[in-house]
Amino acid sequence: MSKAPGEFEIIRDYFARAPQGEGVALGIGDDCALLQAPVSGQLATSMDTLVAGRHFPAGADPFMLASRALRVNISDLAAMNARPLWFTLALTLPDSDSVWLEKFASGLLETAGKFGVSLVGGDTTAGPLSITIQVIGHTEKPLRRDGASVGDNIYVSGPLGAAAAALPVVLAERNVTESVRREAEQAFYFPEPQLETANAIAGIATSALDISDGLLGDLGHICKASGVAAEINLESLPIAPLANRLAADTAVELAACGGDDYQLCFTAPAAAVDQVRQLGFTPIGKLVEGGRRYIAPITGTPGLLNRQAIGTFKSLCRP
Amino acid sequence: MSKAPGEFEIIRDYFARAPQGEGVALGIGDDCALLQAPVSGQLATSMDTLVAGRHFPAGADPFMLASRALRVNISDLAAMNARPLWFTLALTLPDSDSVWLEKFASGLLETAGKFGVSLVGGDTTAGPLSITIQVIGHTEKPLRRDGASVGDNIYVSGPLGAAAAALPVVLAERNVTESVRREAEQAFYFPEPQLETANAIAGIATSALDISDGLLGDLGHICKASGVAAEINLESLPIAPLANRLAADTAVELAACGGDDYQLCFTAPAAAVDQVRQLGFTPIGKLVEGGRRYIAPITGTPGLLNRQAIGTFKSLCRP
Repeated sequence: MSKAPGEFEIIRDYFARAPQGEGVALGIGDDCALLQAPVSGQLATSMDTLVAGRHFPAGADPFMLASRALRVNISDLAAMNARPLWFTLALTLPDSDSVWLEKFASGLLETAGKFGVSLVGGDTTAGPLSITIQVIGHTEKPLRRDGASVGDNIYVSGPLGAAAAALPVVLAERNVTESVRREAEQAFYFPEPQLETANAIAGIATSALDISDGLLGDLGHICKASGVAAEINLESLPIAPLANRLAADTAVELAACGGDDYQLCFTAPAAAVDQVRQLGFTPIGKLVEGGRRYIAPITGTPGLLNRQAIGTFKSLCRP
Repeated sequence: MSKAPGEFEIIRDYFARAPQGEGVALGIGDDCALLQAPVSGQLATSMDTLVAGRHFPAGADPFMLASRALRVNISDLAAMNARPLWFTLALTLPDSDSVWLEKFASGLLETAGKFGVSLVGGDTTAGPLSITIQVIGHTEKPLRRDGASVGDNIYVSGPLGAAAAALPVVLAERNVTESVRREAEQAFYFPEPQLETANAIAGIATSALDISDGLLGDLGHICKASGVAAEINLESLPIAPLANRLAADTAVELAACGGDDYQLCFTAPAAAVDQVRQLGFTPIGKLVEGGRRYIAPITGTPGLLNRQAIGTFKSLCRP
């Protein structure tokens, strides 16, 4: 049982040109990378796997795919208000396709450069295509899920529903104009980790997370961790223009339940409503008593939400 | 494109019972884990993927598989003389088989407990079976690959060839007695990360790595990183008893070229030969001038080594 042939060459040729940034004492090429942690604060770490045919189409453009793989991990750092420092990559590939690898490496290193995060190691194996990235950041003021209280307002950091509306286009299940296709790919493959918002709300927000699986489902995690329930006014949800354009009839549903937007959902005390408003955010709901079961009443236009979505929310909110 | 159904439940049920050890401010369950790095020294990190059908048989016992997956990663820490602190797990599974998961989690957490390393996060996805572990340790005196010099002696930390000899048994390609089968499984699934040896040789050794792909191939990495060549006396290689028992005719070849033993290969100055001998290690060769091509003469009984193995060594030693 040996490693994929050419592993060393793959790493050397495609990833060894990764620039070594802050805190990297020894990068790719030894048994481990050696890293110098900041002297104060804490490290934050997260890991996400994207599997071909599940999290992205098997024929996805490797440049865009690399962007998405790294951005969704950096989004987890943003959700904790952590500044990206380092990441490792486990890449499983059916074969050593040099064109694919060149594009993937370009996308990865360009994205890494944009966010100031250094590739410090990883593993390349032969097998069904999947991408696992583990990212490490640094935080002085972490945002957690478990600090919310009854009475807190609920916020989202930006418009929702774009990635879910984009999905049929990304999967080539729907024909659109070239410009709409590009917009859909941008929404799906280039989500924007909300690092600046996280930094702005740290010290005000009582809880936060990034919306990867849909607002209602993810808000359920805050409810559960904090022992509260949530009331959402669906009419106040900021809907992404792309969701309105591609799916006008179900845009609210996509904003409430669609995943992959990577906006933040956060809570803040009612007394801080003006302070948060000055940052550009208005409440979309509030936290209420959860009792034993954390079931959240949903107000607004629930007719647009399908039963399954509400059911998912309720089940996630149960202890 | 959504995550595997039941992801949250899988994590909660099987891995959330991971005990939170040293430096874990916030463990599994938020967007990131929060970790407190030691105030001095450096962090060491490594990542390894095991793919079913390539690095282990698809039907492998999940308890033993989890042990191997974590041990090979801890071995990378040992190779840098880093003490294990934390790890993350990316587990891709064809389905949510609760019996399999229960056994896998038991193997993982038992191994983690043995080595004092805390599971702090990860991801569970649906797809072809593979296991990626990323491990973080702490080192005050790192062992690297690039510090060796001409004239240094070459050592290995223990007998070689057991895992390679065990492979046909592990793959059920060879029938053996129950006790030999157990010994073979022990060699393959429970390699011993050489943490104590690394600690003992730190400050004496000029370079080190763990032998995952075979002594000759891995020694080639030290040669290349340090700009030297190697002369090995094959007659002085410590041969694992299991290799002699299962493959007497090719035991030297397995010891020189077989992988998966996870012993250390290290170098130390000739002047330190007595000091290293007192630790229980005798030289198996020495480093010589590499010139431009780093080709290593191999002395001893080269007739036992097939051409491919020597060719691999030579190609790895080229700059």
